[in-house]
Amino acid sequence: MSSYPMSPLMGQMMNQPLLISGILAFAARHYGGNEIVSRRVEGDIHRYTYRDCHQRACRLANALHGLGVKMGDRVATLAWNGYRHLEAYYAVSGSGAVLHTINPRLFAEQIAYICGHAEDQVLLFDSTFLPMVEAIAAQCPTIRHFVLLCGREHMPADSKIAGLLCYEDLIDSHSDEYEWPLFDENSAASLCYTSGTTGNPKGALYSHRSTVLHAYASSMPNALNVSAADSVMPVVPMFHVNAWGLPYSAPLSGAKLVFPGAALDGKSLYELFESEQVTFSAGVPTVWLGLINHALQNKLRFSSFRRTVIGGAACPPALMDTLTEQFGVQVMHAWGMTEMSPLGTACALQLRHLALPKDEQRKILQKQGHAICGIDMKIVDDEGKQLPWDGSSYGHLLVKAPWVIERYFRDEGGDVLQDGWFPTGDVATIDADGYMQITDRSKDVIKSGGEWIGTIDLENVAMAHPAVLQAACIGVAHPKWDERPLLLVVLREGQKLDRAQMLAFFEGKIAKWWTPDDVLFIDALPLGATGKVQKNVLREQFKAHRLPTL
Amino acid sequence: MSSYPMSPLMGQMMNQPLLISGILAFAARHYGGNEIVSRRVEGDIHRYTYRDCHQRACRLANALHGLGVKMGDRVATLAWNGYRHLEAYYAVSGSGAVLHTINPRLFAEQIAYICGHAEDQVLLFDSTFLPMVEAIAAQCPTIRHFVLLCGREHMPADSKIAGLLCYEDLIDSHSDEYEWPLFDENSAASLCYTSGTTGNPKGALYSHRSTVLHAYASSMPNALNVSAADSVMPVVPMFHVNAWGLPYSAPLSGAKLVFPGAALDGKSLYELFESEQVTFSAGVPTVWLGLINHALQNKLRFSSFRRTVIGGAACPPALMDTLTEQFGVQVMHAWGMTEMSPLGTACALQLRHLALPKDEQRKILQKQGHAICGIDMKIVDDEGKQLPWDGSSYGHLLVKAPWVIERYFRDEGGDVLQDGWFPTGDVATIDADGYMQITDRSKDVIKSGGEWIGTIDLENVAMAHPAVLQAACIGVAHPKWDERPLLLVVLREGQKLDRAQMLAFFEGKIAKWWTPDDVLFIDALPLGATGKVQKNVLREQFKAHRLPTL
Repeated sequence: MSSYPMSPLMGQMMNQPLLISGILAFAARHYGGNEIVSRRVEGDIHRYTYRDCHQRACRLANALHGLGVKMGDRVATLAWNGYRHLEAYYAVSGSGAVLHTINPRLFAEQIAYICGHAEDQVLLFDSTFLPMVEAIAAQCPTIRHFVLLCGREHMPADSKIAGLLCYEDLIDSHSDEYEWPLFDENSAASLCYTSGTTGNPKGALYSHRSTVLHAYASSMPNALNVSAADSVMPVVPMFHVNAWGLPYSAPLSGAKLVFPGAALDGKSLYELFESEQVTFSAGVPTVWLGLINHALQNKLRFSSFRRTVIGGAACPPALMDTLTEQFGVQVMHAWGMTEMSPLGTACALQLRHLALPKDEQRKILQKQGHAICGIDMKIVDDEGKQLPWDGSSYGHLLVKAPWVIERYFRDEGGDVLQDGWFPTGDVATIDADGYMQITDRSKDVIKSGGEWIGTIDLENVAMAHPAVLQAACIGVAHPKWDERPLLLVVLREGQKLDRAQMLAFFEGKIAKWWTPDDVLFIDALPLGATGKVQKNVLREQFKAHRLPTL
Repeated sequence: MSSYPMSPLMGQMMNQPLLISGILAFAARHYGGNEIVSRRVEGDIHRYTYRDCHQRACRLANALHGLGVKMGDRVATLAWNGYRHLEAYYAVSGSGAVLHTINPRLFAEQIAYICGHAEDQVLLFDSTFLPMVEAIAAQCPTIRHFVLLCGREHMPADSKIAGLLCYEDLIDSHSDEYEWPLFDENSAASLCYTSGTTGNPKGALYSHRSTVLHAYASSMPNALNVSAADSVMPVVPMFHVNAWGLPYSAPLSGAKLVFPGAALDGKSLYELFESEQVTFSAGVPTVWLGLINHALQNKLRFSSFRRTVIGGAACPPALMDTLTEQFGVQVMHAWGMTEMSPLGTACALQLRHLALPKDEQRKILQKQGHAICGIDMKIVDDEGKQLPWDGSSYGHLLVKAPWVIERYFRDEGGDVLQDGWFPTGDVATIDADGYMQITDRSKDVIKSGGEWIGTIDLENVAMAHPAVLQAACIGVAHPKWDERPLLLVVLREGQKLDRAQMLAFFEGKIAKWWTPDDVLFIDALPLGATGKVQKNVLREQFKAHRLPTL
């Protein structure tokens, strides 16, 4: 792959490719007795060690070989966070095949589409998804083998899927003697499709090299800070950008791994936090809302939970404050994308910030964060000119790193890079200390009279009103200003608010000309497969809305 | 370089080589305002930022180009820890040349030898070393340019070195516009010679890839745990295995860097710890002895110093206790070698250890530590058979990692690997949790009646006696047992001790048959260039010693 010139004098260091199998082999040898605990779909708690995991991953690698899976072939999973899914992570990629994690929250036809696009040969899935798989199996002609992730005792008496295999039987019939093959570290390792709010999902095809480098960079003290003294629970799903890399970074650092399976409600999570003495967790804001509500309602405390990383969406300041001040859980914002493996930034304080007043620190911690080691980023205007890092200039955010995609699988979308940089589609500011804050999506930003209005700021103000449950702001055509903001509001149950009250709430909180031209109260916001508001749907729905300011 | 097969499906990630220039460029862009503070040879304190450092490294890269330095050429340094040395680290390697850091504690003829062996083209050196360089210049015909690391005002009125260049003048005359070249990451980046207790020094030739991977792995939370919230002082010299990689890992994580220059006495170090609010430092045990003695004598406390990593030799338990209990400085043992870039193990506790009693934790922390992420190690017997990880079986320690050498520069010493593993020359145990403890050097271990006696254990017992300043144990020929231990002791000033008292002190502390057969009291132990006891000299000196047990 390297097309770079060599020096007349090459280094004389061991030539070892960076392979995903090396991570689990390292954990099995050096942290062999450390635990992996899973709440199973079957309902019970399963526990074993990295040594056991490695042994079963070897069996699975032999089994995949037995099923005719060759280097480069795609093996798909539809599964919750659990030990069998982890075995698949290592056996599939480690043996040279490509792990394709499918998001079960996609529509059935989208799943069938990506299985076909990926040309998946084998599908491993949890019993939760049996009805869905039965429904789409006929539309997935490339899949030669369907494997249900359970033991014989949980296999259905009969299934619409001919030749449905039982995972435990499959791996039991194979040896745990397996030598992980060595191959070029730039070989494909795993495949993850973006949710694709418009058009078909597009695939990010990670390499072994990118995955291993991301595992190192994302574990560093400035980033997720994962160590062998941690008990780590990835609540973020393994079907969503590889659970932010934790299935790789936790074994790399020998951390105890705790998998919540399908039970993501506050009560189930709380029980697992306590019984497994979880110290560090990762998830989207909604998960923490559920957990914190459960804890508040039942007057519960965390005895070991100390740190969480929150990504996927900005953490509401109130939630951050509750976690920090009431529960003593340090909250770290992180930001990334499927196309970035996913981690780009993490928000940790630097030496210079430690003496600042709490309030100043709080302002920094609400940003998306600082580039993790190895990431480069810049903000540019519509013409591609770099903008200053002053915390107020905002522009399109572009990134670069060995764990950022160069193009999509099968060249969907054509050339994506701009002059070697990946355009994230986000609009952001970067301050003088290098902290980035997302102000909008490029396609959502409202262009009013040649200036930009960031919709996230407007939504945050609206959502700070006690009567407001959700808010979304979109641009609507305006003959004089090109676009002006329209605010769409979902009220909390039993609450009342009118247009004038809502608009009055903005006074003094933002520049006057940013104030929305109109407010509409609606019943619900349209959400995509990953829980994000679909603004394209809103723009379509309200494109004919006549602003009262016309 | 990669000779591994490619998958039919390659990943589609950005193809970026891991280059040393990327580290400083990252720090300048993302931690541009963070400080680098140096105590200069000139005596004063110098401070600037990563942004400044990058700018001056660019000037130096242009200057080296102007001096005719090409890719792969060796550029040597004879310098203390300081900002100009750091600029050389990045300008030399970053421009594609090879940084050869020379240990000024070597004998002059050894220095001349390695300059010739390395074919150094340029030598950058601190004024401390001017007399030495003047003395050996004639013996270094490959060196075309001598550059004194100082400003014009500190240049000698005249020098025996014709055409001696002034560093500040040199870089001032060049632009700070420089584009770091991109080249194969396996290209040579730096060269470090082992001290070589026997034979000529041998060179370890690091690559860009090995250096960057080591920077990541050594910064991880289980290892040195370096972050942007740290103020890091490398006391370990930049001429000794690149100061354990801190000149790379600190910028990678945006840590403040504090360089002590030539002033390594307790008083100077203490002042710098306090004035620069150092949080983390790294050095050999003797440095900390000096610092702690100064602090104790003057009843001083550390206001910011929290963690130190100690390597090069095992930290005496008493020193570890003093640092931890009296000064609140957490001590981490680390172990490595020039041939390993250097870090192999670091001693941090795991989740399972956190509930152990202090005494049990203390025992773990006195080991050399756990393999850092990416290192593999094993212990084998004389026949190469793997020995169990039970904490008591001990054998030759072998290691593997992308930052371990494959051979020495110019193939000195021939094939060094054994079946792909690097033999460290150490004898060690590894316990069930993966913690390694060095018990001896392979060549120092005493083979008595087919069994091995580790000399380090014997020396530790002897040095625990209050009258003993230093102790060394060597094997002496014995007709029945092949070898038996002879203990050589240096007493503390004014202390008295005889053979019988010394031997009685061993009772109950070790296996009876390990007890030395004889004790000799001597004035001093012979030390090598890096401060290690030269046991080969002792063995030569006492080879005719007749044991009383014959």
